[in-house]
Amino acid sequence: MSEQTEERSYDEYRVIEDLGGWKRTHNCNEVTAKNLGEEVLLMGWVQFRRDHGGLIFIDLRDREGLTQVVFSPEHNTDVHERAHAIRSEYVVAIKGNVRLRPDGMVNKNLTTGEVEIIVDEWKLLNTSETPPFAIEDRTDAAEQLRLKYRFLDLRRPILAKNFILRNKAAQSVRRYLDGLGFLEVETPVLTKSTPEGARDFLVPSRMNNGEFYALPQSPQLFKQMLMVSGLDRYFQIVKCFRDEDLRADRQPEFTQIDIEMSFTDEETIMNMAENMIRTVFSETIAKELPAAFPRMTFAEAIRDYGVDKPDVRFDLKLQEATEIFKGSDFKVFSKSELVKVLRVPGGAELSRKEIDEYTKFVEIYGSKGLAWIKIKEDGEWQSPIVKFFSEDEIAKLKELTGVQPGDILFFQAGSADIANTALGSLRLKLGERFGLIDESAFAPLWVTDFPLLEYNPEEKRYVARHHPFTSPQVGQMDTITENPDAALARAYDIVINGYEIGGGSIRIHTPEMQQKMFSALGIGEEEARSKFGFLMDALKFGAPPHGGIAFGLDRLIMILCGAKSIRDVIAFPKTQKATCLMTEAPSAVASTQLRELGIRLREKKEA
Amino acid sequence: MSEQTEERSYDEYRVIEDLGGWKRTHNCNEVTAKNLGEEVLLMGWVQFRRDHGGLIFIDLRDREGLTQVVFSPEHNTDVHERAHAIRSEYVVAIKGNVRLRPDGMVNKNLTTGEVEIIVDEWKLLNTSETPPFAIEDRTDAAEQLRLKYRFLDLRRPILAKNFILRNKAAQSVRRYLDGLGFLEVETPVLTKSTPEGARDFLVPSRMNNGEFYALPQSPQLFKQMLMVSGLDRYFQIVKCFRDEDLRADRQPEFTQIDIEMSFTDEETIMNMAENMIRTVFSETIAKELPAAFPRMTFAEAIRDYGVDKPDVRFDLKLQEATEIFKGSDFKVFSKSELVKVLRVPGGAELSRKEIDEYTKFVEIYGSKGLAWIKIKEDGEWQSPIVKFFSEDEIAKLKELTGVQPGDILFFQAGSADIANTALGSLRLKLGERFGLIDESAFAPLWVTDFPLLEYNPEEKRYVARHHPFTSPQVGQMDTITENPDAALARAYDIVINGYEIGGGSIRIHTPEMQQKMFSALGIGEEEARSKFGFLMDALKFGAPPHGGIAFGLDRLIMILCGAKSIRDVIAFPKTQKATCLMTEAPSAVASTQLRELGIRLREKKEA
Repeated sequence: MSEQTEERSYDEYRVIEDLGGWKRTHNCNEVTAKNLGEEVLLMGWVQFRRDHGGLIFIDLRDREGLTQVVFSPEHNTDVHERAHAIRSEYVVAIKGNVRLRPDGMVNKNLTTGEVEIIVDEWKLLNTSETPPFAIEDRTDAAEQLRLKYRFLDLRRPILAKNFILRNKAAQSVRRYLDGLGFLEVETPVLTKSTPEGARDFLVPSRMNNGEFYALPQSPQLFKQMLMVSGLDRYFQIVKCFRDEDLRADRQPEFTQIDIEMSFTDEETIMNMAENMIRTVFSETIAKELPAAFPRMTFAEAIRDYGVDKPDVRFDLKLQEATEIFKGSDFKVFSKSELVKVLRVPGGAELSRKEIDEYTKFVEIYGSKGLAWIKIKEDGEWQSPIVKFFSEDEIAKLKELTGVQPGDILFFQAGSADIANTALGSLRLKLGERFGLIDESAFAPLWVTDFPLLEYNPEEKRYVARHHPFTSPQVGQMDTITENPDAALARAYDIVINGYEIGGGSIRIHTPEMQQKMFSALGIGEEEARSKFGFLMDALKFGAPPHGGIAFGLDRLIMILCGAKSIRDVIAFPKTQKATCLMTEAPSAVASTQLRELGIRLREKKEA
Repeated sequence: MSEQTEERSYDEYRVIEDLGGWKRTHNCNEVTAKNLGEEVLLMGWVQFRRDHGGLIFIDLRDREGLTQVVFSPEHNTDVHERAHAIRSEYVVAIKGNVRLRPDGMVNKNLTTGEVEIIVDEWKLLNTSETPPFAIEDRTDAAEQLRLKYRFLDLRRPILAKNFILRNKAAQSVRRYLDGLGFLEVETPVLTKSTPEGARDFLVPSRMNNGEFYALPQSPQLFKQMLMVSGLDRYFQIVKCFRDEDLRADRQPEFTQIDIEMSFTDEETIMNMAENMIRTVFSETIAKELPAAFPRMTFAEAIRDYGVDKPDVRFDLKLQEATEIFKGSDFKVFSKSELVKVLRVPGGAELSRKEIDEYTKFVEIYGSKGLAWIKIKEDGEWQSPIVKFFSEDEIAKLKELTGVQPGDILFFQAGSADIANTALGSLRLKLGERFGLIDESAFAPLWVTDFPLLEYNPEEKRYVARHHPFTSPQVGQMDTITENPDAALARAYDIVINGYEIGGGSIRIHTPEMQQKMFSALGIGEEEARSKFGFLMDALKFGAPPHGGIAFGLDRLIMILCGAKSIRDVIAFPKTQKATCLMTEAPSAVASTQLRELGIRLREKKEA
């Protein structure tokens, strides 16, 4: 690079040109040795410019890849001279010939790595200021900054590829369902608030002041209406909304693959759904999932894994030790509803610090403490609690767990809920800690036979575990009122790698059963009428037996992409405060807008 | 039918059964003579039951069609006896053998019309009360009633077929765009209010009290952001929202096929888009549209048809007569900005009553009156106004219009806007009246070279005719401030049969041009910053040249279906008061919900 080059700004060359009819011949991943000698026309962004040996090189980037481009003064003086103006992220169109790179400059990691384009003509399509962070896969820019400049963040190939895959997955789902005669039918976004479930987003009505639409938490009742209307097989890839405090992996708006079919049963739906998932995995990431997904009842999942969405990529099962300690001197155990134990082979290597961290971790789930026993290599049982155990208890514990020198046992005791959840969550941590999880594996399974109802101590009533339209199992019509805890649902969840990616049920299709269900939930006739009147009507006019399933598309894509955050698979995600840092939504609006809607802001002191 | 039959209620047989593993073998349109002797299993609704010659016949209906089913006491006594319980709209599953119908009972209008199923076994899957209206294509039930019972209305085959076609069209669009490398990317529904355009629906934020999201009127800025981010080709079939007073064929939420591409120009987009429409017509209704759609400039459309979305299925062009009457004694014409005339061959047959109706009709468009001249068969000019015309004016009018005995001439005079719109709208009425319109024809065309700006007398400023992100034509950078009325946009609309089904433009892609555009629109720097800050930012960092188009899917489906109302192609439409009669949305909500959102209702007197 000459001194002159460094001094000049080259502003005179920074004149933005029209396309003037230029058309691309290839994307930036397509030009290879088979195009040698051809004239090609590429357009894209300047990833990188370097000046070397009197030549100017740029890596030209588009959605699909990179191509090396050379401006040579011997080849064309003017073309080369003007190229001095080029900076990173400038948009250019280049026309030139494909030639082999010189020996030693071949890049084997690139599909285009053997060739380069020697430029005959080029146009500057746009300039760019220096971006606030580098457009590269690896970035240390704060997520806040990246979300504000999302239009630049999405240029990073590692993110862009997620949206290419997301599109592929969605079209794969559609092809599959369309092929089976499912109709994609659009259901309303402006609908009715039915406060059974999460909190609704509300939309004030201008034409009906004082009244509100709600954004749908799911199209559940609409898809049931479509079954009553005889449309037979419905699906929709559809936005749903929940106004909940956001956990790290939740968004206020999320996308669901929503499916419903008539004249069907659990087996048919589960087969259809697992085939769909298999198709998507195969068509997007060329991964072949097992021909039949394993199945597990809810009770088995809780028993063995402590949670209803077990990660079965690794074994490490929980065991129940309640009986062993029934009459124990160790009151923490003997007085507990449930005692669960987890044997971790080789776990004796865990440091005191690690165990302390795990103790804190299980507190998140309501645990009061984490009991443990290390079996040292010499067979000694090292533990703060073992001194309280009888010989018999120790013998039975050995027999139950098959514990060996070098292992550790972790215990959770307390209410069934807390003990299971805490130890089940610890299991995942330990799976990671001991490298038991094959990160490239996908372990799908079905969880079935869910309880229909669960008691809500705050509301002092039973609530539907899935939703109030889920059918009890055949023959359990009366169980739901006589023995609500024992009633099982015709419901099923699909779990992959510990994530619940979908769930569904056979629905209630007679007014008698639906009425009974509402009674069991303490929803009176009047309340049922005002909230679900149209459902009760619809069931009277020949509703077919029907059921369905819904998948969380964002989560599914996250798993397919191997992304760490759901925000990496949503084009314009919101923060945990439910704001969009790019558009600055939500925002204040004009008071005239509120007046038209018949609302006003509550003053701070009122709030 | 025996007396006993009429007296008994057969309630004892009305026991709803489980599917018990029964699976359909066919839909109700599929069983034909080629299945003779086969055992089939069908499920569906009872369209109609009749008892004849000791047999019970039902027409069984599902989404796809009808099959005749026979219950015979000789074939199976119990099966026949229980069939007495069957009523219209009951849901049944029937298992039986396919046999030919007896001679004289063949129905040639049905794919299944040669055969019937003789029932071996059947299950009652659900009963039905008598529906509030008959489930038949022809209905005289009020639309209000049908919307309340939409789940029954959608059972009518004439409506159900619209949703089968709608799905087909949407999947056809997706296949086409996917094949060209367009990525379907989902943009947010909870976004920012930008009051340039129609009125927004607002969503109060619970986490940010006092602030509001807006539902998108279109994903315009998001799709431009995706181009800036290099995603290159985007599409989305997406819900959009406008809180406007509803005309008969508008809905508060509607669906758009939204498309954007980079490194492109008008020709490329128009070719891509017309190919898409051709594909959809071909794949859904097997209609082949012309290989290249005719094109017309905005100026030509207004000149010849008075409107920017001409129905060119018939000729009948408007002509301009302003010059002829420049110095006329007939002041209504001589003082008008524009005089337009429409010659209707054979129009002299119109009655006085009809002409009076047309006079009222044009008043809707602001017309002050409808002047006319009938040319009687004997050549006499019959008209209330012709006495004011000079010989010369009459001669020129003859020459201009080529009017013949038996014809009528209609005139509109006044402001250009009113004269064009009123006479252009009358033209459509007359096309219908004289049977000039081939209802089976589809006449697509492009309208191009739209004005970029139009003066808004109320706001006393220019507004963007398309939207403020539309690029002026090449070389018109300065025209937009120096001669705003003359500036043309790089915009194009696609029109079929007089409906605008899509429109788009090449966008502005440099900050300088966008700034200039905002200035021309009287949007100051601060306002631009607060509303479109992220757009201005994005254009600074290497925005590629880009453009796109959006189609109104509902309207397109309406045209494909030959439906008369947009409500017939939307599963759960809203009324003109923006209410859903089925769910009763919008509705009052709990005051706790409002409190959480930081809003309260404005009292009536405040409003």
